[in-house]
Amino acid sequence: MRHGARGDEKPGLIDATGEIRDLSGIVRDIAGPALARESLERLRRLDPTTLPLVPPGTRLGPCVGGTRNFIAIGLNYADHAAETGAAVPPEPILFNKAPSCICGPNDDVILPKGSAKTDWEVELAVVIGARASYVHANEAMSYVAGVCICNDLSEREYQLERGGTWTKGKGCPTFGPLGPWLVTLDEIGDLKNLSLWLDVDGVRMQSGSTGTMIFDVHQLVAYVSHFMMLEPGDIITTGTPPGVGMARKPPRFLKSGEVVSLGITGLGEQRQRVVAFDDWTAKVAAGEPTN
Amino acid sequence: MRHGARGDEKPGLIDATGEIRDLSGIVRDIAGPALARESLERLRRLDPTTLPLVPPGTRLGPCVGGTRNFIAIGLNYADHAAETGAAVPPEPILFNKAPSCICGPNDDVILPKGSAKTDWEVELAVVIGARASYVHANEAMSYVAGVCICNDLSEREYQLERGGTWTKGKGCPTFGPLGPWLVTLDEIGDLKNLSLWLDVDGVRMQSGSTGTMIFDVHQLVAYVSHFMMLEPGDIITTGTPPGVGMARKPPRFLKSGEVVSLGITGLGEQRQRVVAFDDWTAKVAAGEPTN
Repeated sequence: MRHGARGDEKPGLIDATGEIRDLSGIVRDIAGPALARESLERLRRLDPTTLPLVPPGTRLGPCVGGTRNFIAIGLNYADHAAETGAAVPPEPILFNKAPSCICGPNDDVILPKGSAKTDWEVELAVVIGARASYVHANEAMSYVAGVCICNDLSEREYQLERGGTWTKGKGCPTFGPLGPWLVTLDEIGDLKNLSLWLDVDGVRMQSGSTGTMIFDVHQLVAYVSHFMMLEPGDIITTGTPPGVGMARKPPRFLKSGEVVSLGITGLGEQRQRVVAFDDWTAKVAAGEPTN
Repeated sequence: MRHGARGDEKPGLIDATGEIRDLSGIVRDIAGPALARESLERLRRLDPTTLPLVPPGTRLGPCVGGTRNFIAIGLNYADHAAETGAAVPPEPILFNKAPSCICGPNDDVILPKGSAKTDWEVELAVVIGARASYVHANEAMSYVAGVCICNDLSEREYQLERGGTWTKGKGCPTFGPLGPWLVTLDEIGDLKNLSLWLDVDGVRMQSGSTGTMIFDVHQLVAYVSHFMMLEPGDIITTGTPPGVGMARKPPRFLKSGEVVSLGITGLGEQRQRVVAFDDWTAKVAAGEPTN
């Protein structure tokens, strides 16, 4: 994981008691070469009790740094495709989130200026650990450093009503909370049997299982690697189960002051306060915390 | 500009005689903070004759490093929109190119495995010099470090026939030659009056003028900054004039062994050999140059 101030995060890990231990003396960042197989193996062999404790209350950063390709998969849960009225896609649908939208798991989510249709999407995100190009599905997992939670926040008017591709509605600042932790594959177990959930102000909005994913993680890594070279720190977020605001009757979008919380089995939880753009800039100007 | 081996490029500049001078002693890279206004001003005040000469024949790298958002604008020339049969878009169409597709201006262009529809697009690309979010059009140019040539290579089957957004056909390795040089705004002059051209094996395929752009550079920078935060080194490539292979009758796509050359007034020229994927890997294995 990564801890510290925005843009100045330091590497860390979670010890067996749930406390944060600092890895600054071991790796430069949870990014690039630190995500390689040998590096993860080296971290696994550390005795966490020998590492400095990070004070409780320290901000959690996004759990991976240096992301350049932030790829998302559309309509990848059979039950979510059904709720939106879309057909099950014959091959994965790809779109991009701007890497500059990545933030910590508990940072404020900023409603874009004038936005009326900001929506949530709890997703299982895959973090690439090694350069991957034209990878076969049966070897794809050896290019994966681990998995984490992503809230694939989406402005539906920008995404669907402003012309062109989905890019406009997927990359606004803070639209990509990642973390709290990157979990390696040996610790997460069966990727096809994870529960996902998301609440708004304590009301359950999404619940699902990775068991209803149409294309699974190894297929997705292989597929994307045929269209672009993936590099360490790149993210593929793998689609959302049913229950997004857009598909509710009537549609229901995020409002300033609401709190979104979400989680996935074994990957921890995120919690974001929703803040209107002008309120967020006022908080920043006043030096108030934004997470 | 940037010179040297792939992935290990060093910063440089072009002196008044057209030779490359090394800037390694002055800035770390043509990326991030080196693209800020004060940094460019400092470079402008250097006496190039005091800088080390770079040997002729040194590979030219992409003229900017550290790109995370590589945004492209679709159908932004009135005459190109007409040739594809598309209506003039009411607002800019955005799509993404994978940052990992960026390469030097004269590097081989690799035809993706099995590709039959790889196409060319000469474009004016804008390089961002300062963090830009919710920027107004009348101040947008103060966030721009300069401009360069981009060949927005595109696999039309992946882009248009494989479902989802255009992402699949725009980010294959080597689909983003940038350079040879980043030219600052004081040197390029009127951005609305630049000629663009592209030849395949010496036959003129594209010729146009930035004068027929639908949305101009300052409008585009402002527009994109409303949907995502732009950071130094980010690229917005601004669309292509008429003459792409897909729009020819019959359509005409790139074949292994062909040479693409392209240029824009004041921005120099690019020249790429087209190489089938298997031939390219054989060249790399044999240690032959790939540019």
